[in-house]
Amino acid sequence: MAWFGRFVQVSNFKNSVLPTRPNHFLAPLSHFVSTAAAAGPALAAAAAEPDLAPTRPGEKPRVVVLGSGWAGCRLMKGLDTEAYDVVCVSPRNHMVFTPLLASTCVGTLEFRSVAEPIGRIQPAISTAPGSYFFLAKCTRVDPDNHSVYCETVTDGMDSLEPWKFKIAYDKLVVALGAEPSTFGIQGVNENAIFLREVHHAQEIRRKLLLNLMLSDVPGISEEEKRRLLHCVVVGGGPTGVEFSGELSDFIMKDVHQRYAHVKDYIRVTLIEANEILSSFDDRLRRYATKQLTKCGVHLVQGVVKDVKSRKIILSDGTEVPYGLLVWSTGVGPSPFVRSLQLPKSPGGRIGVDEWLRVPSVQDIFSIGDCSGFLDSTGKPVLPALAQVAERQGKYLAELLNSVAKAGGGRANSAEEIALGNPFVYKHLGSMATIGSFKALVDLRQSKEGKGLSMAGFTSWFIWRSAYLTRVVSWRNRFYVAINWFTTFVFGRDISRI
Amino acid sequence: MAWFGRFVQVSNFKNSVLPTRPNHFLAPLSHFVSTAAAAGPALAAAAAEPDLAPTRPGEKPRVVVLGSGWAGCRLMKGLDTEAYDVVCVSPRNHMVFTPLLASTCVGTLEFRSVAEPIGRIQPAISTAPGSYFFLAKCTRVDPDNHSVYCETVTDGMDSLEPWKFKIAYDKLVVALGAEPSTFGIQGVNENAIFLREVHHAQEIRRKLLLNLMLSDVPGISEEEKRRLLHCVVVGGGPTGVEFSGELSDFIMKDVHQRYAHVKDYIRVTLIEANEILSSFDDRLRRYATKQLTKCGVHLVQGVVKDVKSRKIILSDGTEVPYGLLVWSTGVGPSPFVRSLQLPKSPGGRIGVDEWLRVPSVQDIFSIGDCSGFLDSTGKPVLPALAQVAERQGKYLAELLNSVAKAGGGRANSAEEIALGNPFVYKHLGSMATIGSFKALVDLRQSKEGKGLSMAGFTSWFIWRSAYLTRVVSWRNRFYVAINWFTTFVFGRDISRI
Repeated sequence: MAWFGRFVQVSNFKNSVLPTRPNHFLAPLSHFVSTAAAAGPALAAAAAEPDLAPTRPGEKPRVVVLGSGWAGCRLMKGLDTEAYDVVCVSPRNHMVFTPLLASTCVGTLEFRSVAEPIGRIQPAISTAPGSYFFLAKCTRVDPDNHSVYCETVTDGMDSLEPWKFKIAYDKLVVALGAEPSTFGIQGVNENAIFLREVHHAQEIRRKLLLNLMLSDVPGISEEEKRRLLHCVVVGGGPTGVEFSGELSDFIMKDVHQRYAHVKDYIRVTLIEANEILSSFDDRLRRYATKQLTKCGVHLVQGVVKDVKSRKIILSDGTEVPYGLLVWSTGVGPSPFVRSLQLPKSPGGRIGVDEWLRVPSVQDIFSIGDCSGFLDSTGKPVLPALAQVAERQGKYLAELLNSVAKAGGGRANSAEEIALGNPFVYKHLGSMATIGSFKALVDLRQSKEGKGLSMAGFTSWFIWRSAYLTRVVSWRNRFYVAINWFTTFVFGRDISRI
Repeated sequence: MAWFGRFVQVSNFKNSVLPTRPNHFLAPLSHFVSTAAAAGPALAAAAAEPDLAPTRPGEKPRVVVLGSGWAGCRLMKGLDTEAYDVVCVSPRNHMVFTPLLASTCVGTLEFRSVAEPIGRIQPAISTAPGSYFFLAKCTRVDPDNHSVYCETVTDGMDSLEPWKFKIAYDKLVVALGAEPSTFGIQGVNENAIFLREVHHAQEIRRKLLLNLMLSDVPGISEEEKRRLLHCVVVGGGPTGVEFSGELSDFIMKDVHQRYAHVKDYIRVTLIEANEILSSFDDRLRRYATKQLTKCGVHLVQGVVKDVKSRKIILSDGTEVPYGLLVWSTGVGPSPFVRSLQLPKSPGGRIGVDEWLRVPSVQDIFSIGDCSGFLDSTGKPVLPALAQVAERQGKYLAELLNSVAKAGGGRANSAEEIALGNPFVYKHLGSMATIGSFKALVDLRQSKEGKGLSMAGFTSWFIWRSAYLTRVVSWRNRFYVAINWFTTFVFGRDISRI
């Protein structure tokens, strides 16, 4: 403790400035109590008005954004807060950087590194007087009165009743995303874990570590051990493949070292009805198949018929016992989106025109996975990709900004305003990591198109670099880089917290 | 995307090495199914024996450690794994670096940075054939048969039944810690949050962020807003004071910036029946009182009589509405420790002699907050401090190592072996942070003793440095330093995940 002694000497003289005033500790509680009592009756009138009233002349027009995914957040980031007040309604106060979510399940990245608070994406929301973030879900849209009805989300906090309120909008952007498809298969919602939100990744991680530890307990049968340590992934799209790759990396590097007793029992199976990574180039698909197999991922072609609490049953009758089941078979519109009385695109999404407007109503737009081009546009419904959502958010922010500039910011005032060029989607290519410092990059514009595709370590490096530059804030870029560095140097973290 | 183009060129030639072998994807599932089926019957015999049997000649003697706190982990770190197999039974697979826990509640540090996996503290536990970590709790100790009975902990995973098993020990170390005292006050367990484990800090953080967001919802009354944003801390010991300090830091720096709409409603009250930081020097106490008051913490002297879901009632009848209630009024032995049929020290802890042995039984030791010197030793029960637990763990590891060297490692074989010097505790001083880059350092050996005490920025710097060198692994030291750096540069993270 030699260094300690030095500090003590340096700071010794500071003692003389310590106060010798009488103890403040007996201050009465009256300050708090009286303030509350005095404020109560005086402001009761405000409490009687549970809504955000329509904006008045002199106030900025209000854009209400439902959702905080790629589309909604990119939109909010781009909106001109000199021209608009921004109100966001979402059950989570952050955006999830979904392409890196699979890495958090096994501890390659921290959960915090892939979550970006909305207040950082659009600071006005936490500081501007008329801009807000509400931790709530939308329960009804009333296009005739330019209003949405909401209810606070208080998950798990039973001392709080959900609070209902109404928000008037000048412009409404529906960016509610999609939800995982279960194809009506029994038991999926109850037994499988999806991989869409941070809490899903947390659940996967906790369950994986729990199973690793339980399988080491004396007296657990060989069969039960194998079941507990059988990780089954259903769905061979990029998410399923990336998660399988991360998992096999985790097993080869960390389980072998940290769970040496049970390492020979753990196994990853990826079940897909058709082919894995169907949107990628044939050669890339073959490469991915070979790599995954080499890393110990068992690729199985099969159709899931039924999901029980400890096994799944395939359509050919095969029973597959599992300890962890991750479900990533694609997404579809949520029941709330389906229930909205708005025009629909093929597939049940909210139908939009070329400017991402919902026709037949005023001032409603829809972007991201919850929306799709109407049949009447002659354009196909775009895939549910972060890339599409992000581009739409950016486009719509610019459109709304120019509408405001032309004086059409308020409700029912934009009919005469030219909207400029319609939204055109240009696919920039697809990337997917497959574990072991390998990734696929497919830069073709469509499945049939020509262009470059590649696989291997260089692709993996591109994949990492591309994501690092797209993680939204500098803070998170920094954290992701630090996480990758520590995982590389010290291995993954295995605390089950 | 100019940088992107360069990578593409560099890696273009890699395409030629892509495999063109037939698709592996149609591999049947039979490998998994047949392995499980084949292994099942052959190994059924092993499953019939749900215990870890007594060690046999030729095997290493087995030390069973109950608990994974400061005492148990320091012990496991110091045990000679050439001489002993180590088995740890604990409901959590990591040690919590408790002095930094308060900082995680407000996002100054990440949760992961204060949790150290046991497998890193003592690697043998995950790799040596006879050493194990079991995620379980002990339900019974049988000193006559040198056995403990355990049950797996599967919190929240309802598809798993708790699994019961028995472990035979050569040496048993009870290091179960303590649990928060509620003094029989109604409603504490239901409504207050303690601050002992990582999940407590997570709950505090989630509730604090939830309340900040809910209080911003349209139509919430002024009174309800004040209630939601009133954070009450009961207990003015180091934990309560550190948490209050962190909270006021968070409010002054982050809430004012990120929750500008509600910043004037948030308030911290610290309630203590006697004086805050009673173990510290008078001058330090006065300094702390002044600093906390300056940072906006309301110090209230009062005795809590009753805790309701939205308010606490003090003994003088004052009602204090709250949105967040943190309870840190000290600790006492858990019901399981009380129920053990072993000698007890004053206060109901497990009674030990000067060598930390439990007399009247063979081969049982107890360390940390769950143990205390027996009356017959003539020594006082030591305070429930990390410092004491850590020193006892270190001492006992050395004692057990020397016992093994002298040939007394096995059950019932150490009676004739000299144990060396008894355990003597020398207090190194106390430290506490009080927010705003200020801390207290009290290097006196006892409350009445003489010695150095100091307060202020230098103390804070010492406090941070001292903890950085004591965070167990290099990985966590690195993370804590990075966390402090990012909090300083970018502010605290406010994602509610």
